[in-house]
Amino acid sequence: MMKLSKLSMAICLCAGCSLSFAFEAGTFEASYPGIGGMVPVKVTFSKDKIEKIEVDPNKETVGIGQNAIASISSEVVKTQSLAVDNVTGATVTSKALLDGIKECVQKAKGDVAQLTKKKNIAPVIAKTETINTDLVIVGGGAAGMIAAINAADQHLKVTLVEKMNFLGGASAICGGSVVTEGSQLQKDLGVKDDTPAKLAYDLLDNGHQKNDMNALVFYVNNVGKSIDWAVAKGVKFEKDFSFRAEWRTSRMVPLKGGCPAFAETLRELVKNAKVNVLLSIKAEQVNMTDGSATGITAVGKNGTKYIINAKAVLLATGGYGYNKEMLKGSLKDALYYGPVSSTGDGHKMAENAGAAMQLMDYGKLYPQGIEVAPGIAKSTLQGNIGAYNQAGIMVDKNGNRVINEKGSGKDMVAIQTKQPASTLYLALDQKSFDGFRDYAKKNGISSEDIDKWLAQDGKKPPLFIKGNSIEEAAKKAGINPKNLLDTVEKYNSYVVNKDDKDFHRPVKFMTKTIDVSGPFYIVEQKPRFATTLGGVKVTTKMEVLDKNGKPIPNLYAAGELANSVHGDDSAPGANVAWCITTGKTVSDAIANKLQN
Amino acid sequence: MMKLSKLSMAICLCAGCSLSFAFEAGTFEASYPGIGGMVPVKVTFSKDKIEKIEVDPNKETVGIGQNAIASISSEVVKTQSLAVDNVTGATVTSKALLDGIKECVQKAKGDVAQLTKKKNIAPVIAKTETINTDLVIVGGGAAGMIAAINAADQHLKVTLVEKMNFLGGASAICGGSVVTEGSQLQKDLGVKDDTPAKLAYDLLDNGHQKNDMNALVFYVNNVGKSIDWAVAKGVKFEKDFSFRAEWRTSRMVPLKGGCPAFAETLRELVKNAKVNVLLSIKAEQVNMTDGSATGITAVGKNGTKYIINAKAVLLATGGYGYNKEMLKGSLKDALYYGPVSSTGDGHKMAENAGAAMQLMDYGKLYPQGIEVAPGIAKSTLQGNIGAYNQAGIMVDKNGNRVINEKGSGKDMVAIQTKQPASTLYLALDQKSFDGFRDYAKKNGISSEDIDKWLAQDGKKPPLFIKGNSIEEAAKKAGINPKNLLDTVEKYNSYVVNKDDKDFHRPVKFMTKTIDVSGPFYIVEQKPRFATTLGGVKVTTKMEVLDKNGKPIPNLYAAGELANSVHGDDSAPGANVAWCITTGKTVSDAIANKLQN
Repeated sequence: MMKLSKLSMAICLCAGCSLSFAFEAGTFEASYPGIGGMVPVKVTFSKDKIEKIEVDPNKETVGIGQNAIASISSEVVKTQSLAVDNVTGATVTSKALLDGIKECVQKAKGDVAQLTKKKNIAPVIAKTETINTDLVIVGGGAAGMIAAINAADQHLKVTLVEKMNFLGGASAICGGSVVTEGSQLQKDLGVKDDTPAKLAYDLLDNGHQKNDMNALVFYVNNVGKSIDWAVAKGVKFEKDFSFRAEWRTSRMVPLKGGCPAFAETLRELVKNAKVNVLLSIKAEQVNMTDGSATGITAVGKNGTKYIINAKAVLLATGGYGYNKEMLKGSLKDALYYGPVSSTGDGHKMAENAGAAMQLMDYGKLYPQGIEVAPGIAKSTLQGNIGAYNQAGIMVDKNGNRVINEKGSGKDMVAIQTKQPASTLYLALDQKSFDGFRDYAKKNGISSEDIDKWLAQDGKKPPLFIKGNSIEEAAKKAGINPKNLLDTVEKYNSYVVNKDDKDFHRPVKFMTKTIDVSGPFYIVEQKPRFATTLGGVKVTTKMEVLDKNGKPIPNLYAAGELANSVHGDDSAPGANVAWCITTGKTVSDAIANKLQN
Repeated sequence: MMKLSKLSMAICLCAGCSLSFAFEAGTFEASYPGIGGMVPVKVTFSKDKIEKIEVDPNKETVGIGQNAIASISSEVVKTQSLAVDNVTGATVTSKALLDGIKECVQKAKGDVAQLTKKKNIAPVIAKTETINTDLVIVGGGAAGMIAAINAADQHLKVTLVEKMNFLGGASAICGGSVVTEGSQLQKDLGVKDDTPAKLAYDLLDNGHQKNDMNALVFYVNNVGKSIDWAVAKGVKFEKDFSFRAEWRTSRMVPLKGGCPAFAETLRELVKNAKVNVLLSIKAEQVNMTDGSATGITAVGKNGTKYIINAKAVLLATGGYGYNKEMLKGSLKDALYYGPVSSTGDGHKMAENAGAAMQLMDYGKLYPQGIEVAPGIAKSTLQGNIGAYNQAGIMVDKNGNRVINEKGSGKDMVAIQTKQPASTLYLALDQKSFDGFRDYAKKNGISSEDIDKWLAQDGKKPPLFIKGNSIEEAAKKAGINPKNLLDTVEKYNSYVVNKDDKDFHRPVKFMTKTIDVSGPFYIVEQKPRFATTLGGVKVTTKMEVLDKNGKPIPNLYAAGELANSVHGDDSAPGANVAWCITTGKTVSDAIANKLQN
């Protein structure tokens, strides 16, 4: 590392300020923890300028953290300032990078305080830009990107508006599997007898017949063709079905590389398509003329107002999981693990345009959440599997088991949401905790994370407790110690007799007794959700319906905004397939309408 | 009764003949058995003329037999001839009436042979008539009549074409109950939480997910409003639900007066509406211009060809149960109890117009049929109930029981269709046979019918056997006598122990042992059907789809012709409701389209 002892002054290059800085010319390095590990940054200084910022290989999320790294680095160099905002949706990565740059500035003897001062930016004169387009799509998640790609392929003039500074929405954090009913993919994997009606039946079963029937028939009639389209466009799938009890017919296929790869493929396709992508521009309303949608109004970060006139408006704005004000019922207290961009913007825009809404109380809850930040979850789904392979059990605050730990998530949530603070607890001996720790990595929970949480000793969430004995761990976690001891003994007798008389845990997951000698661990288990199920009412062509049941001309919905297709619960693989189906089929219908 | 001894001659008044007749002036009476009992006729003669035919009160079917009586009476008087054809679909009534008239002619000393001679009618010059209309409806069953009434209410010019000489189709022989999901009627009866999705789920369950999803969504979204319409128009319902296992939600309500009253209400409404009803005119094809339906061509009995130009064509032609050539699979051998007019005309017309067909193998089978004429069934549903209330059992040709006699019809048909000649047998001691005879009346089977069939002693169908002992009855019926004896003994032991170890017949229907002392009776049980389930593929607006999945412009389907909505089985009350829903909603859509 070079060091220069001579300080020099320089005039800042930025327009709205006249500060001057001095650095030791040279390249300095620092590294702070991001979301996927450390974020190693290298900053090169001349005497009076931050010349270059480089970030070494890291595990920040493609399309989210990586975009934040690129945009923040370029912003700092461009503005010669550290007064750069974190990127919404990539806060942890942004902070890691900015902290690293600041350390480099300190190492280069720069004045961090001065550089971090908000600049006296001359007030921006708000501009208004008018854009004329065939189709404006609001929201750059899976549904919006697919609609944009497909509409552009059909020579529509497409404008895609995304409030974040990257495309992806919830697509990169999805479950990673896709329903393929009626597709060539499904047939090639050996299932040729699936039908729209069979899929509809399973969806109605899973969603307790709260499903929107119009959306449902649209879904089942079009999913196969839409999956075929995705395959043709380069979306990659595994070579076998994934089996789940929700589906009576084999129709769920994992995405190759999971959802991150899926999202990346879509981003590439958008890049290569003739789509006018407007990032960091937030749609604010659907413009209506004589009861018909005629475009949208959006606002850029710099205050620029965009009037986008369009022949068709497609809202693909995702859910409202990150908007507490819109959450109801058990969702209000559940932990969230979805994207921060899911704030229900499209729900509000649609409602203001006269749309009828439904099922706004519902979301897809899973039982295996730990609270890693206020209101924010990480999933321990994999960690639990590791624990149950050993001798892990689940108990309530009274220290009693309440369910077959290997039962369905749906049954577990039903019991969990009736507990104080909707919380259940994993009760783990050493080998079970080791199993938990090992498997938890698959959900992106590192051993370091776990040690940090253990060190907090329950003083702040997530609750990870270690005690020298069962009683000590129980007491620290606020669980009835005597009952927990009894529960452990009873469970051990069930293991010996190969019969869980209380909850019928499968014998193959009861091979080991719980070690009562200590140490002993307690881990909180709270409901988590990412996907909301409430949304707009639609016709069988995904036209948005008004409160009198009439379609609002030229206004369409796709993806999570129209999630009532699922009813009060969503089945595995059904959300991604829904985004693909709506994105593809609605854009086809719009192209067909505009060109005929 | 007057008698005149003087004979006189007269010139026949009919145009195409020059025969002369002589009668004893006066009024004569005769009476022959029809379908519902005796048909008493009074004929008044002058010296040279049949002056008047009157028929006294009788039980012939309203809308079918009664129409035949009216049209034959008027035809005989008008043509002064007995060479009048039986009315198709009312053969028994026609024959009873004509036999009565002939007897009266004999009593009046008229020359029956001469009067029955085919007249030398001058060859008819085939005419062509052209009719211009807004909507032409083919088929005057429930769906067609409702569409006609509703379209006329909305000031469309409506032409209703029916090949029979009366309106009604299958409506008068339906099960008599109606699905009411979402209607005010259902709410008024206390069920307010039914939904389209709940109905869809039950229909998919019952139809084994073979249901047409487009038709299904159309059905569940529109049935409630359609029932409300029917109520407003004067269709009368009972004041309570009828409960059936197929429905998870109470939604089936019996029609007041059953289906005959329903059909009669519709006929009255058609009569009072501004509808151009063309009876005895058979539609032969949908006329197509540039791929769009532009009307139909039909032919009258006298050879007149009708070109009916229309802006919309609605096919409501019913099923194909009476057309052996179109029946497949287990339907081919099943007995039929539906209307003779169900010959699949609309299926053929639609297919010739390019329509895609589906589920043509399926019909709604019931297990309790006896063959009263070749291929024709009557139902013994009620008779069986009477027999099972005593000690009646059901056996196969080997003399073994094969099922819980009180189980579902669906399960019974599944076993029955695997038997030789798809036949099972009621095995009845005297008190069980008495119970059968008593209850069978509710299905229109008289004690005289039963005695007649017993007298035939199995020499021709239906098989009704009486033997002095179990063995004798079994032998005559071709059933293994030893096995039947063993079966009876075993069943009796189950009755004593209150436990049917083989098939779990409910104990409350096992209160009496079978009397082994004789006499003993065997009654055949064959599958019967009236409703076919195959039909045209449709859009969610009941537009007929072509083989490429594109709607055929201006061509719509309603009623049994689009019965694939039900899947491979139809649930109770779902057929009548389907006819009401399609008739009402499709005509609304057509009116809306033509007037906007």
